[in-house]
Amino acid sequence: MKKSLKLLLLAASVALLASPASAKTIRWRMALSWPSTLTPLASPPMEVAKLVKEMSKGKFIIRVEGAEKTKSALGVLDMVKSGSYQMGHTGSYYYIGKDPNTVWFTTIPWGMTTAEQYAWFYYGNGMKYMKKVYDKFGVYSYPGGNTGVQMGGWFRKEIKTVDDLKGLKMRIPGFAGKVMAKLGVNVVNIPGGELYTSLDRGTIDALEWVGPAMDIKMGFYKVAPYYYTGWHEPASEMSFFVNQKAFNKLPKKYQVMLITAMKAASADMYIENFAKSVDAWQKMIKEYPGIKVKTFPIPVLKAMKKATDEIMQEYASKNPLFKEIWTDYQSYLKKARTWTMMSEYYYLKASKEVGAGE
Amino acid sequence: MKKSLKLLLLAASVALLASPASAKTIRWRMALSWPSTLTPLASPPMEVAKLVKEMSKGKFIIRVEGAEKTKSALGVLDMVKSGSYQMGHTGSYYYIGKDPNTVWFTTIPWGMTTAEQYAWFYYGNGMKYMKKVYDKFGVYSYPGGNTGVQMGGWFRKEIKTVDDLKGLKMRIPGFAGKVMAKLGVNVVNIPGGELYTSLDRGTIDALEWVGPAMDIKMGFYKVAPYYYTGWHEPASEMSFFVNQKAFNKLPKKYQVMLITAMKAASADMYIENFAKSVDAWQKMIKEYPGIKVKTFPIPVLKAMKKATDEIMQEYASKNPLFKEIWTDYQSYLKKARTWTMMSEYYYLKASKEVGAGE
Repeated sequence: MKKSLKLLLLAASVALLASPASAKTIRWRMALSWPSTLTPLASPPMEVAKLVKEMSKGKFIIRVEGAEKTKSALGVLDMVKSGSYQMGHTGSYYYIGKDPNTVWFTTIPWGMTTAEQYAWFYYGNGMKYMKKVYDKFGVYSYPGGNTGVQMGGWFRKEIKTVDDLKGLKMRIPGFAGKVMAKLGVNVVNIPGGELYTSLDRGTIDALEWVGPAMDIKMGFYKVAPYYYTGWHEPASEMSFFVNQKAFNKLPKKYQVMLITAMKAASADMYIENFAKSVDAWQKMIKEYPGIKVKTFPIPVLKAMKKATDEIMQEYASKNPLFKEIWTDYQSYLKKARTWTMMSEYYYLKASKEVGAGE
Repeated sequence: MKKSLKLLLLAASVALLASPASAKTIRWRMALSWPSTLTPLASPPMEVAKLVKEMSKGKFIIRVEGAEKTKSALGVLDMVKSGSYQMGHTGSYYYIGKDPNTVWFTTIPWGMTTAEQYAWFYYGNGMKYMKKVYDKFGVYSYPGGNTGVQMGGWFRKEIKTVDDLKGLKMRIPGFAGKVMAKLGVNVVNIPGGELYTSLDRGTIDALEWVGPAMDIKMGFYKVAPYYYTGWHEPASEMSFFVNQKAFNKLPKKYQVMLITAMKAASADMYIENFAKSVDAWQKMIKEYPGIKVKTFPIPVLKAMKKATDEIMQEYASKNPLFKEIWTDYQSYLKKARTWTMMSEYYYLKASKEVGAGE
């Protein structure tokens, strides 16, 4: 071959190699804290993987692996930290044992609603604190979809006084469980698969799950007729975790695709859970018209609030960052709630009074 | 040049032309119904343009042109229909003159809240009807950001009875204006720039704008101390319009980028408007502690509801599709509202009773 021809061939090869069409496909894995079919919780990760694949024309692939595959529902933070998975989709408050400040990015009893919390994340100090808490794990954390207000749980008997809670056997994990324990509830831990039978047989008197969209699959409404309104998880946010080194190595355009897809998918989850709760509730009351929606009596609610404050104080007294975030959170909640009441609350109240939406 | 060399050069050229790196940049224009600096309304189009540019690495460019440039705030539908702009960002209900069914995709008095409406769009029949209404314009319509509950307006005097509305001079456009007119209000149309002076001098007695985030810039709180809670625009959704031919010609990956960016930006606008309302309200009451937040008395609210129903009936009797969508909307609202009350409303009520968020 002539020298000029060789050079030309070389130039053509370089041009082809340098073009994005021949760029190597990036392959990531994402571990979930739930089975990959458990909608709406598993919807955001599935949607992110689909969107990123389509936007990159198949050049950025995220394989989603549910807890059925990883066998480590609560090991997501460790797996993303180590880089064995580049991403995870989980609940921040599962990692309270590693850092109590992880709770701020899911929900707290008597805390912010979904809109209030997103406002705190993006226009208050929420995302700043999220970064501070997760930086030490080498992980970027992003909101991953919200359940809205979770129901207070299914009870076999009506709760009329604070005394009715004493000795009550209830499955209610996390912070809310600590609050209930303070009120004399016998808080028990029972695997999900045994809950229905335990409630049916009276081994437990009550349990907390999520809300109609997820509760309906568990069948609790068939065996416990009192469905209490929520107080303990007003806006549970899921979390996407991304290994920082893996993210930083991504081309800028893929970083933006990932962030945009996470935001769109998170917004979608809130709507999906809302819509499925609407329909699940209609199905439940049609099948079991005897189900009663109840709000705990005011003295019970006040006792729950007092116990919540005590527990928060305990954490704050031991952990300066917890105290700092709690102060910031309360201050934002106060002004955000003023607006929520002026707008959404009084609209709903007025609508109720005139029979709109009935 | 030798023949083989010529062929090789040709092959290299073809390879370069076919590679995405040399694909032609796609340039679109998007017309807005508002000035391009009027946040939060102008935020979603600006965000979409930025995200799409970054995700496409500069190969898909959308130039945003505000009403200050197009000089045709309410001509957006026509401009996107004709293809002179590939996209628009506007309010669907501005086009009630072309088709009364455009109102369903913004908001209606005593209608759905933001979450309820998104649930109807995506899990009820909302998007199906949106497509039906906009297909005849050759336009795809997508949700474009929500304001949440808009305030009922600024009043110089307190409204104590239905009679207090009679002869009241008020700037309140659209459907809500028709309702107010039925109650005896003298509904006037005054350009935005003259509103403050008109209210200050008593040329008008009241006006409706949006909510704290946008009202604060207008200064109404300085001259009208009664700020009424909302009833007439519980969840005003903005709209993105996309010319169908232009969209269909886009490579699939750009279509997905555009749709994903619109969804993320819409979710962001709701949060931005919420957060800015929170802060604007704090600023207003600090500066003018005499402002009073009021809800109209129940007989007034009931009269508004009755007048709303009458107007909806008038439209329904003349337009079969309006009747069909109204029936579907009411049926979805009824079940969605049941869930809203069980979840968000009773949580806020309980929080108020125990002093959470205070």
